[in-house]
Amino acid sequence: MKIIESASNFSEGRREEVVREIVAQAENVKGVWILDWSMDSDHNRSVVTLVGSPEPLLNVLFNMTKKAAELIDLRNHKGEHPRMGAADVIPLVPVMGSEMSECIELSKDLAKRIGEELKIPVFLYEKSATAPHRENLSEIRKGEFEGFFEKIKDPMWKPDFGPDQVHPTAGVTAVGAREYLIAFNVNLGTDKVEIAERIAKAVRHISGGYRYVKAIAVELKDKNLVQVSMNMTNYKKSPLFRVFETIKREAQRYGVSVIGTEIIGMVPMQAMLEVAQYYLQLDDFGINRIIENRVMDILAKEGADR
Amino acid sequence: MKIIESASNFSEGRREEVVREIVAQAENVKGVWILDWSMDSDHNRSVVTLVGSPEPLLNVLFNMTKKAAELIDLRNHKGEHPRMGAADVIPLVPVMGSEMSECIELSKDLAKRIGEELKIPVFLYEKSATAPHRENLSEIRKGEFEGFFEKIKDPMWKPDFGPDQVHPTAGVTAVGAREYLIAFNVNLGTDKVEIAERIAKAVRHISGGYRYVKAIAVELKDKNLVQVSMNMTNYKKSPLFRVFETIKREAQRYGVSVIGTEIIGMVPMQAMLEVAQYYLQLDDFGINRIIENRVMDILAKEGADR
Repeated sequence: MKIIESASNFSEGRREEVVREIVAQAENVKGVWILDWSMDSDHNRSVVTLVGSPEPLLNVLFNMTKKAAELIDLRNHKGEHPRMGAADVIPLVPVMGSEMSECIELSKDLAKRIGEELKIPVFLYEKSATAPHRENLSEIRKGEFEGFFEKIKDPMWKPDFGPDQVHPTAGVTAVGAREYLIAFNVNLGTDKVEIAERIAKAVRHISGGYRYVKAIAVELKDKNLVQVSMNMTNYKKSPLFRVFETIKREAQRYGVSVIGTEIIGMVPMQAMLEVAQYYLQLDDFGINRIIENRVMDILAKEGADR
Repeated sequence: MKIIESASNFSEGRREEVVREIVAQAENVKGVWILDWSMDSDHNRSVVTLVGSPEPLLNVLFNMTKKAAELIDLRNHKGEHPRMGAADVIPLVPVMGSEMSECIELSKDLAKRIGEELKIPVFLYEKSATAPHRENLSEIRKGEFEGFFEKIKDPMWKPDFGPDQVHPTAGVTAVGAREYLIAFNVNLGTDKVEIAERIAKAVRHISGGYRYVKAIAVELKDKNLVQVSMNMTNYKKSPLFRVFETIKREAQRYGVSVIGTEIIGMVPMQAMLEVAQYYLQLDDFGINRIIENRVMDILAKEGADR
């Protein structure tokens, strides 16, 4: 069974009826399941987390973008979070049975449809980016909706799909394939934040650490602890177990112990299986050996046969 | 979503059409999925592995038992594996969302139906056993079909359900709840089988080790290695990680390393998650945090709503 995830961001976090209409595009669609949706009125923004099979998921994402463009007018939009489009950003993440290369292709298909049918300029980002300066979403979004009317004239920022001018009310949209992001925090048995800082520095990419790790030091004052707080942006290439073992080693230098860890939000089964496989030294073990995975395959097939 | 597993054993491993008719009772039943079925002509025995929701699964197990009783005549049955009934043994194993206590209740419901409606004496075994001498399946089965006509007269071996006399053709059946059994093998970087024997002795229940571990030493001559080969009969109470850590420690005494491990067959997601949770020192993490688990819940609900 193939499962792709998309936590799409829409620029509406105050009018619930609008968010509900966008979410409704994903309801009762065979092969697409709503994991979660939420809205934030300060950010004036909502996130709709879907999983699904490639084709129906892509249709739903297109329909949500279309609905957002109908109902959201960026000219009247204010909120704390930077934004550039009614459908602001649409990621595609391979969760199970799908490779990154497939998600990249899918992101281009979706971007093309949004550009051609909705007349919204689309920028491909992350793994789908067509130039290095477009990989980073925040670089694309710089200047936001209001600034894009000028920015889009710069050849550096010619859209990948759609017209060469900003949609007057729906702005521009970013679509891209990326890996699943895991938020992983490691608590250390000390109140010295400088130790967490040194360890964060040791593991994070920017200062010489693991390529797909972003890490900062955080003080948990109520607990009298410090924490290395991480975004693992590619658990396949910079795996949890390897980063965790490095943190434990580094902590030993300061006579400090790891006293616990936490993962925020949901994770793909594969990420946890790889941890178990590593520590148990399992020679040959895959997700197909998990009973529930087999049940899911059968359930999905039943659904397809309906 | 609740998932219970049952790898039922039937005393037919030569007439494929008979086994297929038994398996057919599980086909196209909502809430029941066939993971696997196989037959062995030397043993003259077949195993049908199902998973399902409690109620439909129980119905299917009853119907398979009924079909086996119709088509199998133990008076004509010969095979290497000990057996006492057409449906020889029916285990119920909690895999997900179900507790052992529920499986015990279900096993009694099933035993009652088989006893009353099919007139087959039923013995509850393992966690469902009504006396300690009935916990062990091989104790119940001692004497086999032929011996049971005398054995059943002994008050020690009065059936839990059904008539006090052996069914003339279908014999007697054992039904019971048990934990999922994981076959876990650890390969050691030595050809000295006595080291594997000492380690097996250290971890197995019978010689003072972990309560739910059965372990033997095996020589893998083609690989020039030895192996500690284990049946983990309750991964919840004698978990894989703890037993594995003990084996690694014990191996150190002999200057030997663990060079790899293997798990035979399928495992519940929970067993692997507990390993990951232990080694990552995760404070608060459950199966509900796995994306695929959420998808499965939704798929199952869709199925139920059909």
